[in-house]
Amino acid sequence: MTDTIKYLIDETRIPKYWYNLAADLPVAAPPVLHPGTLQPVGPADLAPLFPMDLIMQEVATEREVPIPEPVREVYRQWRPSPLFRARRLEKALQTPAKIYYKYEGVSPAGSHKPNTAVPQAFYNKQAGVKRLVTETGAGQWGSSLAFAGALFGLEVKVFMVRVSYDQKPYRRALMETYGASCTPSPSKETQAGRAILAQRADHPGSLGIAISEAVEIAAQRDDTKYALGSVLNHVLLHQTVVGQEAMAQLEMADDYPDVIVGCTGGGSNFAGIVFPFLGAQLRGGKKVRIVAVEPAACPSLTRGQYAYDFGDTAHLTPLTKMHTLGSTFTPPGFHAGGLRYHGMAPLVSHIKQLGLIEAVAYHQTTCFDAGVLFARAEGILPAPEANHAVKGAIDEALKCKAEGKSRTILFNLCGHGHFDMQAYIDYFGGKLQDLDYDEAELAMALAGLPSVKAAA
Amino acid sequence: MTDTIKYLIDETRIPKYWYNLAADLPVAAPPVLHPGTLQPVGPADLAPLFPMDLIMQEVATEREVPIPEPVREVYRQWRPSPLFRARRLEKALQTPAKIYYKYEGVSPAGSHKPNTAVPQAFYNKQAGVKRLVTETGAGQWGSSLAFAGALFGLEVKVFMVRVSYDQKPYRRALMETYGASCTPSPSKETQAGRAILAQRADHPGSLGIAISEAVEIAAQRDDTKYALGSVLNHVLLHQTVVGQEAMAQLEMADDYPDVIVGCTGGGSNFAGIVFPFLGAQLRGGKKVRIVAVEPAACPSLTRGQYAYDFGDTAHLTPLTKMHTLGSTFTPPGFHAGGLRYHGMAPLVSHIKQLGLIEAVAYHQTTCFDAGVLFARAEGILPAPEANHAVKGAIDEALKCKAEGKSRTILFNLCGHGHFDMQAYIDYFGGKLQDLDYDEAELAMALAGLPSVKAAA
Repeated sequence: MTDTIKYLIDETRIPKYWYNLAADLPVAAPPVLHPGTLQPVGPADLAPLFPMDLIMQEVATEREVPIPEPVREVYRQWRPSPLFRARRLEKALQTPAKIYYKYEGVSPAGSHKPNTAVPQAFYNKQAGVKRLVTETGAGQWGSSLAFAGALFGLEVKVFMVRVSYDQKPYRRALMETYGASCTPSPSKETQAGRAILAQRADHPGSLGIAISEAVEIAAQRDDTKYALGSVLNHVLLHQTVVGQEAMAQLEMADDYPDVIVGCTGGGSNFAGIVFPFLGAQLRGGKKVRIVAVEPAACPSLTRGQYAYDFGDTAHLTPLTKMHTLGSTFTPPGFHAGGLRYHGMAPLVSHIKQLGLIEAVAYHQTTCFDAGVLFARAEGILPAPEANHAVKGAIDEALKCKAEGKSRTILFNLCGHGHFDMQAYIDYFGGKLQDLDYDEAELAMALAGLPSVKAAA
Repeated sequence: MTDTIKYLIDETRIPKYWYNLAADLPVAAPPVLHPGTLQPVGPADLAPLFPMDLIMQEVATEREVPIPEPVREVYRQWRPSPLFRARRLEKALQTPAKIYYKYEGVSPAGSHKPNTAVPQAFYNKQAGVKRLVTETGAGQWGSSLAFAGALFGLEVKVFMVRVSYDQKPYRRALMETYGASCTPSPSKETQAGRAILAQRADHPGSLGIAISEAVEIAAQRDDTKYALGSVLNHVLLHQTVVGQEAMAQLEMADDYPDVIVGCTGGGSNFAGIVFPFLGAQLRGGKKVRIVAVEPAACPSLTRGQYAYDFGDTAHLTPLTKMHTLGSTFTPPGFHAGGLRYHGMAPLVSHIKQLGLIEAVAYHQTTCFDAGVLFARAEGILPAPEANHAVKGAIDEALKCKAEGKSRTILFNLCGHGHFDMQAYIDYFGGKLQDLDYDEAELAMALAGLPSVKAAA
C-alpha cells in the first residue's frame, strides 16, 4: 500500500513570530471607519472592547510580530500540527496531482481556532480582564475560547447562533465542560437580541446578531472584554502559524504548492495557511494560485459587494471595507455554521480586490460527498466547514487528472467533524438539502449598506 | 504559567516489533480449552474465525513479534502518539506527584483501538478475506475496525450493543462514514440474537451477546472472518506499541514510573501500556506498582471468579481461564460501554492472579468528576472509559499529596470522548446515576460457570 505520509517538525520549529501580511502588501488595506464621523478609528475607540496589545496588533505594520513565550508553551501541546501528503486520497482519485493537507483538528478543541483563542486569552489576562464574551456559529470558536479561558482562569460567556445551538448540543456540552456558559442567540439578555426577537420570535440567529449581543455585554463592564474568532487583522495574524509551519514541512518534502485551497467564512483559517505563502510571493517568490472556497448559501466573496459595512447586525461595530452580503442578511441554516457570516475579513477582501486570490462557491451536498470520500481514504472525518476546502482541493486534483498534469495542491483541513455528526446522519439519510439564500433578502440587505462615499 | 509538556519521539522510533509478555512470565498462562473435549485448542480449531497469522500470534512465545512494514506505514499517520507531563493538572491538584499520560485519542478513530484494528485488517487482507464481522460496545472498536477496513478494502459488519447503539448515534454515524454497516445487538439476524430476544424483547444487549452474533455470522462464510477488539492475546500484543513508546518518551524526560494506571474492560489498553514495563520488571528491572481501574457496575477483576468461562453468551467460543462475572451476566447501561464485558483478558487475569497487579473499582459519577477536572486542566475531553484511568491517577496523586511524597505516575488516556457527549450532558444535568449490578443476577451467572475441574 502506498500510504499517506506525515511531515512532522519538532517543537523548536513552532514559529517564534506571527507573520503580518500588511508589511508586504503593494497597496495598504482601507482604514476602519467610525460609523458616526466616517473618520479612521484610533486605538482609543477600540479600547472598551479589546486590550491594548491586541489593538496594536490590529494596526501593526511590522512583518514579524513576536509570539509571547507563554503562548508558545500552550501551542506546544498540539503544535506543530502535522502536514500530510494524502497519498491514499490521490490513489482514490487516480490523479497525478500531489495533495498535501495541514491538519488543525489535532488541537484540544478540534480546530485551528485555539491558535488565536490562546493569545487572546493571554493578552486579556495580562491586562487584568476577568471575563470574555464572544459569539460562535457552529461552536468551533466558542469551544476554543472556552478552552483558552480555562487555561488562563478567565470566565467565558458565549452567544451561540440559535440554529447551531439546536443542531449541535454536543458542541455546547464541550464548552460547558471547559467551564464556559453558552446562551442561544438571539437572546433576551441584550437589547440587540430583544429587538430581533420582537420582530421574529423564532429567529434562527446569525453571526452578525450574536456579535451584536456579545459586544453589547462586553461594553457594559470594565472587567469584561470582547473576543472575536475571525475577521479582524489580529485574529488572521495569529493564524499564520499554520502557513509558516506548512512552509517548513513542505521544505522537508522538497515541494512547494502550485495551488493553495482554504474554506472561507470570516477568513481566518484561509488567511492562516495562505498569508505566509502570499507574502513570499509578494517579496519576489514563486507565484501560487490561491482559491477561497465558500458556501453557495452565504457567498460573500463571489456574490457580495466590496463596500464599507458593519460587522454586526445591530450596528455596534466600526465600519470595515469588505465583501459583504449586508449586515442584516441571515443565511439559511446549512450545516457549516462557521461559514455563515455576512462579511469577509477586510484583509482577505482586500487581496481578492487586488486580484491575488480567486473564489468559488459550492452547495453543501457536494461538499459532504467530498468529505465522505476523504474520510474513507484518509481516516479523518472533516468538519462541514472543512468539507468545502476538501471539495475545492479534490476539484483541483481532478483538473490535474483531466489535463494529465501533476501539480502540488495544499489545503487547510481546519477541523474535525466529531461534533457535527448530525450533519453526516442527515447526509446518509438523504435529508441534506442544498439550501439557497433568498435573492430578495440579499437585495434588501445590500440596499441597506451604509453610504460611505467619502472614504470609499 | 507552568505548562503541560509534550514528549514526542520521531517516527523512526515507532516500535519495529510488538512485545510479547508470554516470553517473560514466571508461570505460563493456562491453556485455552475446547468446550467439548476440555482439551487445549489447536490452531485448526480457531481457523474458521481468524487468519493463521493472528492464530500464531495468539500462541506466540518469542519476546519480539515483528510488525509488518505496511502496518507501520499506517501507524505513522498518528504514531508515535504524544506523552504529556500533566503539569497543569498537577498544579490544579497541588500534588508533589509527577503525572504523565500517554494520549491515544490522536488516532483517526479517536482511541487506542486502531493499534490492533490495522494489523487485524492487514493479516485478513493478506489471507484473502473479504469481510470482517465484529461486535462493539461504546463504538470505539467498531469505528476503529471500520477505519481499518476502509484502508484495506475490506467490508466490515458491526454488531453494536443496543444500549450503546441508542445512547451513541453519532458513533454509529462515524462507522457508516467509514463505509461499515452497524446493527443493534441482540438482532434478529442470528440464532443467538433471536434466542435472547425471545426471552426479552427489549434486551439492552451485552458484549457477550454481540460477540455470539458476530462469531455466528463469521463462521457461516469462508470469505468472512471474525475480529475481536480486546481480550485475546494477539490483541493485547498489538497494543504494546503504547507502552514501548511511553518507555522511550519517559527516557527523554529522564524519568520512570513508580505507578502505572489503566482502565480495564477487556484489558487491551491496560495491557498496552503495562506489559512492556512489567516485562522489564520481570527481567530484573525496577518494580512498578500497577493499578487496573474498573467500573463498579461490571467489576470482573475485583468481584469476579478466576475460572474457565466462555467469552460469549451463546457459548460459541472456546473456554478461557479469566476473571469473570459469568457469561450470562448483563451489566447495567452505564456510559463507559467499552468496559461492559463480563470477563477479563486471560493474560491480565493471569498476572492479577500472580500478584503482579492490583485492581480497584469506581462508580461512574466520581469518574466523570475526575474527567471534567482533567478536561479543564489539560484541555482534552476523555472518553467515559478513560475517565476511570483519570480517576485512578488522580487518586494516586492525592495519596502523594497526603503523604508529602513525590512519585511518578503514568496512565493511559486511551481515547477522547467526542462521541460520548450525551454522558457529559447527563452529568452536568445531574442525571448521571451510580448504577449497580444486580447481586442476584451475578450469583446466578457465577453459578452457571462451566465445570472444568480437570484442567483447572
